[in-house]
Amino acid sequence: MLAHPTPSASLPDPLTLDDDHPHEECAVFGIWNAKDAAPLTTLGLHALQHRGQEAAGIVCFDPQERRFHSHRGLGLVSDVFADSRVMATLKGTRAIGHNRYATTGATLLRNVQPLFAEFAFGGLAVAHNGNLTNADTLRSELIRRGCLFQSTTDSEVFIHLIAISLYATVEDRLIDALKRVTGAYSLVVLSEEALIGVRDPMGVRPLVLGKLPSEDGKQPSWVLASETCGLDIIGAEFVRDVELGELVVIDENGIRSLRPFGDTHPRFCVFEYIYFARPDSVLEGLPVYEVRKQIGHELARESHVDADVVVPVPDSGVPSAIGYAEASGIPFELGIIRNHYVGRTFIEPTDQIRHLGVKMKHSPNRPILSGKRVILVDDSIVRGTTSRKIVDMVRAAGATEVHMRISSPPTRHSCFYGIDTPERSKLLAAQNDLKAMAELIGVDSLAFISLDGLYRAMGYKDRQASDARYCDACFTGDYPIPLIDHDAEFGPGTA
Amino acid sequence: MLAHPTPSASLPDPLTLDDDHPHEECAVFGIWNAKDAAPLTTLGLHALQHRGQEAAGIVCFDPQERRFHSHRGLGLVSDVFADSRVMATLKGTRAIGHNRYATTGATLLRNVQPLFAEFAFGGLAVAHNGNLTNADTLRSELIRRGCLFQSTTDSEVFIHLIAISLYATVEDRLIDALKRVTGAYSLVVLSEEALIGVRDPMGVRPLVLGKLPSEDGKQPSWVLASETCGLDIIGAEFVRDVELGELVVIDENGIRSLRPFGDTHPRFCVFEYIYFARPDSVLEGLPVYEVRKQIGHELARESHVDADVVVPVPDSGVPSAIGYAEASGIPFELGIIRNHYVGRTFIEPTDQIRHLGVKMKHSPNRPILSGKRVILVDDSIVRGTTSRKIVDMVRAAGATEVHMRISSPPTRHSCFYGIDTPERSKLLAAQNDLKAMAELIGVDSLAFISLDGLYRAMGYKDRQASDARYCDACFTGDYPIPLIDHDAEFGPGTA
Amino acid sequence: MLAHPTPSASLPDPLTLDDDHPHEECAVFGIWNAKDAAPLTTLGLHALQHRGQEAAGIVCFDPQERRFHSHRGLGLVSDVFADSRVMATLKGTRAIGHNRYATTGATLLRNVQPLFAEFAFGGLAVAHNGNLTNADTLRSELIRRGCLFQSTTDSEVFIHLIAISLYATVEDRLIDALKRVTGAYSLVVLSEEALIGVRDPMGVRPLVLGKLPSEDGKQPSWVLASETCGLDIIGAEFVRDVELGELVVIDENGIRSLRPFGDTHPRFCVFEYIYFARPDSVLEGLPVYEVRKQIGHELARESHVDADVVVPVPDSGVPSAIGYAEASGIPFELGIIRNHYVGRTFIEPTDQIRHLGVKMKHSPNRPILSGKRVILVDDSIVRGTTSRKIVDMVRAAGATEVHMRISSPPTRHSCFYGIDTPERSKLLAAQNDLKAMAELIGVDSLAFISLDGLYRAMGYKDRQASDARYCDACFTGDYPIPLIDHDAEFGPGTA
Amino acid sequence: MLAHPTPSASLPDPLTLDDDHPHEECAVFGIWNAKDAAPLTTLGLHALQHRGQEAAGIVCFDPQERRFHSHRGLGLVSDVFADSRVMATLKGTRAIGHNRYATTGATLLRNVQPLFAEFAFGGLAVAHNGNLTNADTLRSELIRRGCLFQSTTDSEVFIHLIAISLYATVEDRLIDALKRVTGAYSLVVLSEEALIGVRDPMGVRPLVLGKLPSEDGKQPSWVLASETCGLDIIGAEFVRDVELGELVVIDENGIRSLRPFGDTHPRFCVFEYIYFARPDSVLEGLPVYEVRKQIGHELARESHVDADVVVPVPDSGVPSAIGYAEASGIPFELGIIRNHYVGRTFIEPTDQIRHLGVKMKHSPNRPILSGKRVILVDDSIVRGTTSRKIVDMVRAAGATEVHMRISSPPTRHSCFYGIDTPERSKLLAAQNDLKAMAELIGVDSLAFISLDGLYRAMGYKDRQASDARYCDACFTGDYPIPLIDHDAEFGPGTA
Repeated sequence: MLAHPTPSASLPDPLTLDDDHPHEECAVFGIWNAKDAAPLTTLGLHALQHRGQEAAGIVCFDPQERRFHSHRGLGLVSDVFADSRVMATLKGTRAIGHNRYATTGATLLRNVQPLFAEFAFGGLAVAHNGNLTNADTLRSELIRRGCLFQSTTDSEVFIHLIAISLYATVEDRLIDALKRVTGAYSLVVLSEEALIGVRDPMGVRPLVLGKLPSEDGKQPSWVLASETCGLDIIGAEFVRDVELGELVVIDENGIRSLRPFGDTHPRFCVFEYIYFARPDSVLEGLPVYEVRKQIGHELARESHVDADVVVPVPDSGVPSAIGYAEASGIPFELGIIRNHYVGRTFIEPTDQIRHLGVKMKHSPNRPILSGKRVILVDDSIVRGTTSRKIVDMVRAAGATEVHMRISSPPTRHSCFYGIDTPERSKLLAAQNDLKAMAELIGVDSLAFISLDGLYRAMGYKDRQASDARYCDACFTGDYPIPLIDHDAEFGPGTA
Repeated sequence: MLAHPTPSASLPDPLTLDDDHPHEECAVFGIWNAKDAAPLTTLGLHALQHRGQEAAGIVCFDPQERRFHSHRGLGLVSDVFADSRVMATLKGTRAIGHNRYATTGATLLRNVQPLFAEFAFGGLAVAHNGNLTNADTLRSELIRRGCLFQSTTDSEVFIHLIAISLYATVEDRLIDALKRVTGAYSLVVLSEEALIGVRDPMGVRPLVLGKLPSEDGKQPSWVLASETCGLDIIGAEFVRDVELGELVVIDENGIRSLRPFGDTHPRFCVFEYIYFARPDSVLEGLPVYEVRKQIGHELARESHVDADVVVPVPDSGVPSAIGYAEASGIPFELGIIRNHYVGRTFIEPTDQIRHLGVKMKHSPNRPILSGKRVILVDDSIVRGTTSRKIVDMVRAAGATEVHMRISSPPTRHSCFYGIDTPERSKLLAAQNDLKAMAELIGVDSLAFISLDGLYRAMGYKDRQASDARYCDACFTGDYPIPLIDHDAEFGPGTA
Repeated sequence: MLAHPTPSASLPDPLTLDDDHPHEECAVFGIWNAKDAAPLTTLGLHALQHRGQEAAGIVCFDPQERRFHSHRGLGLVSDVFADSRVMATLKGTRAIGHNRYATTGATLLRNVQPLFAEFAFGGLAVAHNGNLTNADTLRSELIRRGCLFQSTTDSEVFIHLIAISLYATVEDRLIDALKRVTGAYSLVVLSEEALIGVRDPMGVRPLVLGKLPSEDGKQPSWVLASETCGLDIIGAEFVRDVELGELVVIDENGIRSLRPFGDTHPRFCVFEYIYFARPDSVLEGLPVYEVRKQIGHELARESHVDADVVVPVPDSGVPSAIGYAEASGIPFELGIIRNHYVGRTFIEPTDQIRHLGVKMKHSPNRPILSGKRVILVDDSIVRGTTSRKIVDMVRAAGATEVHMRISSPPTRHSCFYGIDTPERSKLLAAQNDLKAMAELIGVDSLAFISLDGLYRAMGYKDRQASDARYCDACFTGDYPIPLIDHDAEFGPGTA
Repeated sequence: MLAHPTPSASLPDPLTLDDDHPHEECAVFGIWNAKDAAPLTTLGLHALQHRGQEAAGIVCFDPQERRFHSHRGLGLVSDVFADSRVMATLKGTRAIGHNRYATTGATLLRNVQPLFAEFAFGGLAVAHNGNLTNADTLRSELIRRGCLFQSTTDSEVFIHLIAISLYATVEDRLIDALKRVTGAYSLVVLSEEALIGVRDPMGVRPLVLGKLPSEDGKQPSWVLASETCGLDIIGAEFVRDVELGELVVIDENGIRSLRPFGDTHPRFCVFEYIYFARPDSVLEGLPVYEVRKQIGHELARESHVDADVVVPVPDSGVPSAIGYAEASGIPFELGIIRNHYVGRTFIEPTDQIRHLGVKMKHSPNRPILSGKRVILVDDSIVRGTTSRKIVDMVRAAGATEVHMRISSPPTRHSCFYGIDTPERSKLLAAQNDLKAMAELIGVDSLAFISLDGLYRAMGYKDRQASDARYCDACFTGDYPIPLIDHDAEFGPGTA
């Protein structure tokens, strides 16, 4: 309710709350019992910036004053928390934080997490990475009941479910709420008594537990983060992944686990390895960089082609390109230079500029490409438009052949669990066979890693050998969690 | 809920919602069926700026697109709506607006009205002038029920009561909500179907109805405003005061009245005449300027003193001083000059500056005051500190005698119905007799208008003859509406 | 040179320097040997805000650190210096300040004074009230010589003339520069050694000297200000007017006067009394309020008319209206209410709003005007458009007769000495006789104070008796200072 | 003069102009006869962003209106020119632009280039990359002459020299000014008649000429840029390097060259190849990426060591590391991950955070480094502090041996020609021998490329064979241009 954001000092906001509910790729972070809880949280969020660049926020709790403090804003962590006066207000030894990436145009401050509310039992803050598959259904029901929504995020559903729960304690109300939602979620929750980390019953999105040495001789500083790189930056020791369906509750009495869900089966998102996670993270026991290099090895084996140079599409294609070069013996070269100063917004191109085919982000390294047979290695093809532009650029720089190698299987299905993918009709691989794709992209040859090749890179003999412990729905359409909102709208089996 | 305001781009906000609930002096405005609904609303709010300078907001509805638009901000109307790009987004032929004055330090954007929410039945915006006497009680109850509050205003209570009402239509839900609240309120409400003006069953705060000629040949442009000066600025014709306990419902079928409350008795706020309303407004049939001049006449009669000049404390003392001068034959002079450029914030005074007794707002007109016996006319004495400073300034400019005449009876009780008065213990007249007050303020003589004199100025023989149709609780302690929150906290009869 | 202003964070600026050189109405202030030099300067500028609301600036000097500090910005003094962190940087015991009102659209930060430059001999800051009549001529010459201008103000000419002077000391360079310029100027100058106040050889614009008690037992805190109200606000004692053609030099050795110009004759601006100065100021020995009241007396005698009420056009018409009412015996009433919240910018009116004849600044007090014969008292008629609107408004409120009385003679000539008046062709009184003016404005009768009546109000028998000690060129065309730029462009005698 | 910058809306600026004159690393860009001159310039500046991230500016000229327009601001090109309303004002078919990197704390808007001034002959804008060695000397002389400086940049000296020149035409005045300055400079100049590119007589800093096909059938769109990557982004064809001591004058009559300097000898900055230029640029005929890779080859040959992985310090060490890996046969791995979201400002570290040894920019890729013998490849060692931190980080991640290989010779001397290097006393290699450096940095072995090896990588047999056509003063102390200001202050031969 009270849906008045102020995205900027002067820009008005549309009041309707029926924006597309953005599928969020996000990062969460939490810390308990650290003198500099908020500064450490900014560092953790900074290391997790790749998971969301649109907005960031922190809510912290000062157990001495028994007060919450918060700051949220649009932009990078280093922008949102640049003002030392702001930092000075974020007092307390407990904090949670959130980076947000939203896929819709509606970038509203009221959507920036962590969400916070005052309940009958006191304040509570929630930060969420993932996507609920019954959020719309629950939202309609809650609005009918008289709940007033402020944001357009899935995540607010948690807050209202907690508010209306008839249970007495925060833990029981939280569990009550969790049992009503379906979907993928890694949560960090901060109440006046506890820091709680939650992973959904299939563990689709990552969440890790770490610790720093105790400052007060009583408890260590416990840390929760989406990826291990969020621990590394503050020198925290990795303890373990939070388990699927687990609530890690950290309070004055120490740390304990609740497992309110009965049967669970792991379904960790395979796309985290391919693209989304940072290369120096280790997720569910596997180092991301190593998986990517191994994919390069597999790719080289599966789809060898004679060429002069292996060129990554920077930055995400680099480890697989190194692997490809190693396995094939073809030299690895930086044939495409990435401009790291690309901001979010930039000049609206004029016709002339459009005609010139300007690329803001990538430049060809002409001396490397000119007169060469080039193998381009990229992580995925979604709509295919970017790939086409890059291929054109490489050819214009003088490449005699362009072969594209992709370190993921063809993306044929949308993700409903927290990765932003367009609807199926816009996925190139959902609409075209390999030959048509190669033509559309303009390459001399095109190959994707096979599904089994991908699983081999992760250490299994093939996909079957993994016992379906990963979610690869974007490649296979095998959705492990029911798509309740989607099916209600489009009918079952249409994703 | 979701209590994340952004008071400024960089300043964080305290999350606790237990700020003092500000007693609000505010203005409301609404317009129906006008091509330029939002620009006309900015004009109406501008004319009503004296009722609240801290923040302003507009919510409008475009019946073609069936969409609400809004803009709210801290500052004067002319600042908040200065950006023509903002104005361009405020499309639609129906709008409501609000000026806010809050008395606490916590100036939060989330408190700026109109409040807006999406309900099961669609969007609804509410703007409120007044103060509820059972807001805290209701708020606690609603939070226990699972309602999540975003703002710290009384006014949000209306929104939640509407949301949880079991009635089907907006009108029935609104009436249901109104029946749960006690206190003083003039409301303008904008739904997707109607513009509704409401005055509480005692009509404590003003609300007038006006109209502009029809633009579309079907209906006139109906206008609601806190005072007639809000009609005058846009050339709207005064139709009538909204009556106590009346809902004026304006929709596509025209205009009609609902009177859901049984017995009502008028209790219009007498302080609106003395100080709060603009002098060119006519409220409940009485011209404000004329009442003030008549008070001057009565004052001169009741407490004549020989002097050389009658000097108003600008600006509010001017009409009574003119009346006093007329009745006494003593010349009216601008012996105090007001600096109209005083902003809200200014430099923090250093010790030196404090020692110099700097006045930012008032300057003595030395040649007028020097060597003169001065009658100062002011509208009220609250804490007495300002009066003391002004008297000192007038003496320092050379006045040989200073006589203070006040155009209201002594303010001995707090207001709980929408005027910001300090608690009793800080009211000079609640703690001191006339002689002590004169000494504290440093005047040669001090006189207040008598209660009967005040009523004579309004055209009655005496107070009794008015049949108690005004609320004068701040002078008499005769509170017509139960002080539910206050009594719950401090015990009955303590106000 | 280096003509890159930053009017706002994002708006670009036109680079051409050939904007209309704005005729400036401004205020200057200076203080020497005061611990809180910058805060006291903000107060002085605040009291002088009526002389210029567009921009403000302070340059101060810290003799301990031997450093200058400055802050300048667009807006009111209370806005520009609102930030206590800014104030904290303005260290030092000596300061000068400036309020600026510019008449052209080009509001450029680079034009905001005090101007500052680093010279061979050290830093120097200059603040200027007035207008040079040979600024364009000098500017062209200086540019030809290789001087690079940054601002579009007349005042920068002083800086370059000082820079290129062949004299050695600041005083000699300043006098060298002053001898090259013609026009009206009151200057305050701050060097590393001295605070200097300067008034042009005819003393057209005001400048007063005051003092605060010594803080250090050595020297008092000397103060320079455009008007006495700038002394009053900080409690400074009025010492005397700076004399025409005088340089008051204040340095570590005390205070002394230089009079580098030979023959001088006073020509103080009469319009300061009529309109421009604050009513509580005393200029050249005459109290402004008293002069205005006396004008009202004279007006009533010269052009009596039977009527029911005397109504000032607020705020400037008030003292003369009080005088008129006193002399005529007709009651003084606030028949027009001024809205004091009018900001600089506001919504661009739509056709509908224009059609409604909306007035942002003045509202009619209907009960006072309705059915009455009204005498309106205003200070001047320039283009006549505002007068017409006010008369229409008064009639629409029900006045049966409207008589306009003006407390200045007809304005028939432009000012070239620092008051912003339009060119002659746009001055109503330059193009029309009294009868035509009355018709254009729509009044039943119109009268201006006579020239002799004006001088009587100032205490002379008639104009001749004043021995031409005032500049009244705007009424008479008798320009005491040669219009060098103007004559060069349009030919002599065309003003 | 008129030294009032506004670094931000509210922060004051120190007025003294004696800041360290920053040694600037910058980019320049110019375009002639292009419909979208300003948008194309933003693109060119964007591609050249690596040469300066602190501020950016554009001045353009519209030959139709005969008006200059400009916009300048602090921040990245994509920030400064993000506002489409700003872009809309930058009309005209001719433009120059500048990216600025300044090394002192004083980041003042008035220092942002292009500088612009109105001269007797009209407007002129100048953008400068490089550093003058007699700027202080000239500045003092100009101030004594009466010139008023606004900025603290070397570059303003050009403007004043042009202003005071006694020659008549822009070209002659420019040449007159150039003959007075010594130092390194690549300039782009825009007058009302011409676009001029200038390179100093030794061609220390780069400047290239390119063209786009004619839009109007008369002339092509000529382009000037610091590096070829500034041509590539807009699809402009590389024509040639501007030659040393050449003025390329482009006007309505076409393009022509002026060579006002007699004897010249090339001394192109060798550090552009090692670090400063973008890897996809080709400067003076040599591809930057290829030079860097060849340096890696030479390094591997000169200082082979047995190891498990070759790890670049990203991003600048990457091409040399690839070269090293190729030549040595040791695998190339991304053992250090760079966080590309690092902003300029960030939280001030607390003691705790300092203690944790937090790295904002680089993270170790633990699985790659743990248990490995690591060869780190970096481009240079300046103070050594960063190297030490990286080595510590790599060891903390489990590396068993760390060998550092540097792709430049030891940096033993300061640069006075436009690269920001600290003074000699802070250069690690100026104060320590190789062994001491290895210890200070904490590596098992340390090696720099030899001077002859560097020249071999550029295609010469050794340094001598290059016939001294490069400036390598930072390695050798062989300064080709006299250090006039420096010698005046510290005595000759002290650099």
